[in-house]
Amino acid sequence: MALVGAGPGDPDLLTLKAARLLASAEVVVHDALVGDGVLALIPESAERIDVGKRPGRPTLQEMISALLVELGHQGKRVVRLKGGDPFVFGRGGEEAEALAAAGVPFEIVPGITSSVAAPAAAGIPVTHRGVSAAVTVVTGHRRAGEPDVDWRSLAKVGGTIVVLMGVSQRASIAGELMAGGLAATTPVATIESATTEAQVVGRWTLAELAAADVHSPAVIVIGAVAAFEFTSVPSSLSALIATAD
Amino acid sequence: MALVGAGPGDPDLLTLKAARLLASAEVVVHDALVGDGVLALIPESAERIDVGKRPGRPTLQEMISALLVELGHQGKRVVRLKGGDPFVFGRGGEEAEALAAAGVPFEIVPGITSSVAAPAAAGIPVTHRGVSAAVTVVTGHRRAGEPDVDWRSLAKVGGTIVVLMGVSQRASIAGELMAGGLAATTPVATIESATTEAQVVGRWTLAELAAADVHSPAVIVIGAVAAFEFTSVPSSLSALIATAD
Repeated sequence: MALVGAGPGDPDLLTLKAARLLASAEVVVHDALVGDGVLALIPESAERIDVGKRPGRPTLQEMISALLVELGHQGKRVVRLKGGDPFVFGRGGEEAEALAAAGVPFEIVPGITSSVAAPAAAGIPVTHRGVSAAVTVVTGHRRAGEPDVDWRSLAKVGGTIVVLMGVSQRASIAGELMAGGLAATTPVATIESATTEAQVVGRWTLAELAAADVHSPAVIVIGAVAAFEFTSVPSSLSALIATAD
Repeated sequence: MALVGAGPGDPDLLTLKAARLLASAEVVVHDALVGDGVLALIPESAERIDVGKRPGRPTLQEMISALLVELGHQGKRVVRLKGGDPFVFGRGGEEAEALAAAGVPFEIVPGITSSVAAPAAAGIPVTHRGVSAAVTVVTGHRRAGEPDVDWRSLAKVGGTIVVLMGVSQRASIAGELMAGGLAATTPVATIESATTEAQVVGRWTLAELAAADVHSPAVIVIGAVAAFEFTSVPSSLSALIATAD
């Protein structure tokens, strides 16, 4: 059993190890956030199980963990494929915990986290000399029983803030960060469908974020680096880049 | 020209794109933090330039950027290979800026950041449901002109803290975080030579960190998740895992 990060979307950003495990998998259990290009690499011969949580079709995490344990006991070559990295809001820890408790051998295969690759695909370095010496990755999705993040303290840290799964909560997040002292003019970038042909980048200020035209799933970058655009992208891709102007 | 992340050390954690670019490179310009296993993949035919900054042999970042611009103007297939990810304290932004200013076409190829993969290799998820809903990656290395990180505010955020290049500053970092309200008993893990056969993991408390036996370069994980060990690692690797007990 391997808990494998599928990266941000582009199948070329799979790791060598992930690609090899995928090619020899007998069963692939995947999320909704795994890119279509990556799913296309699943061999015809492999059983493919979609456990993606979607609006109106929730899948309990406990059910997924139980499924993995069952597959593990069957001794099959299983790849549990997750968008981004398994341990960056991928809930890989919960599945690893269940597998360990059940005595199923497993390994963790890191993936490129969207929290870094999505900004990079927009030409944004999450850290930059003289500008940002820290980056905080935080989920905007609040679940029952989840520990609170102190957004007002986060506003005072002085680094870049990357919000995953935060589109629906963007108004309250922006409000809390401004209440914590971040300027209303702080640059913000939103990146949808990062690293794929459908990528859309928006540029905003923190004050504009609440009403920004951005659709889930998207990565939100908040901080001075969000104004950067270090790219020399092909013109075909440039044409797709939307701005807030 | 491609600014390429080499990942945390294990060559199997290169991306497909990085491996392909490396295989066809005419010139490879690499850092000190790129793993030996990755360097072994550089083709014999490629010119290899080591620009790693080491104690007693500093290399000015401006010189590296100038070198890249010159190589870019020569039209060669250049891979600028960086440990981890180019944009997570990899100074990729500075090099991208120099290339863009000089009109040299380039692309950014993300790599697996050690800030996530090193903890993962020790069985530590940087986020975990009910335990940590944020992770801050911060450098302990202070340069002149670098923006300050407010460690006391960071202590109040409530998430995991991952410190890169922080071994020499670990006493002051621990002191600031405790002054900011983090408990002296907060779990800490240190991971040296992550994802390679030389990997060493140490487990400590925040109060113990100042005097911890840990050698640079290492990744330091601070927070409740640092007590986790979600692994079913081969026994050969388990034997290498040192603990603070």
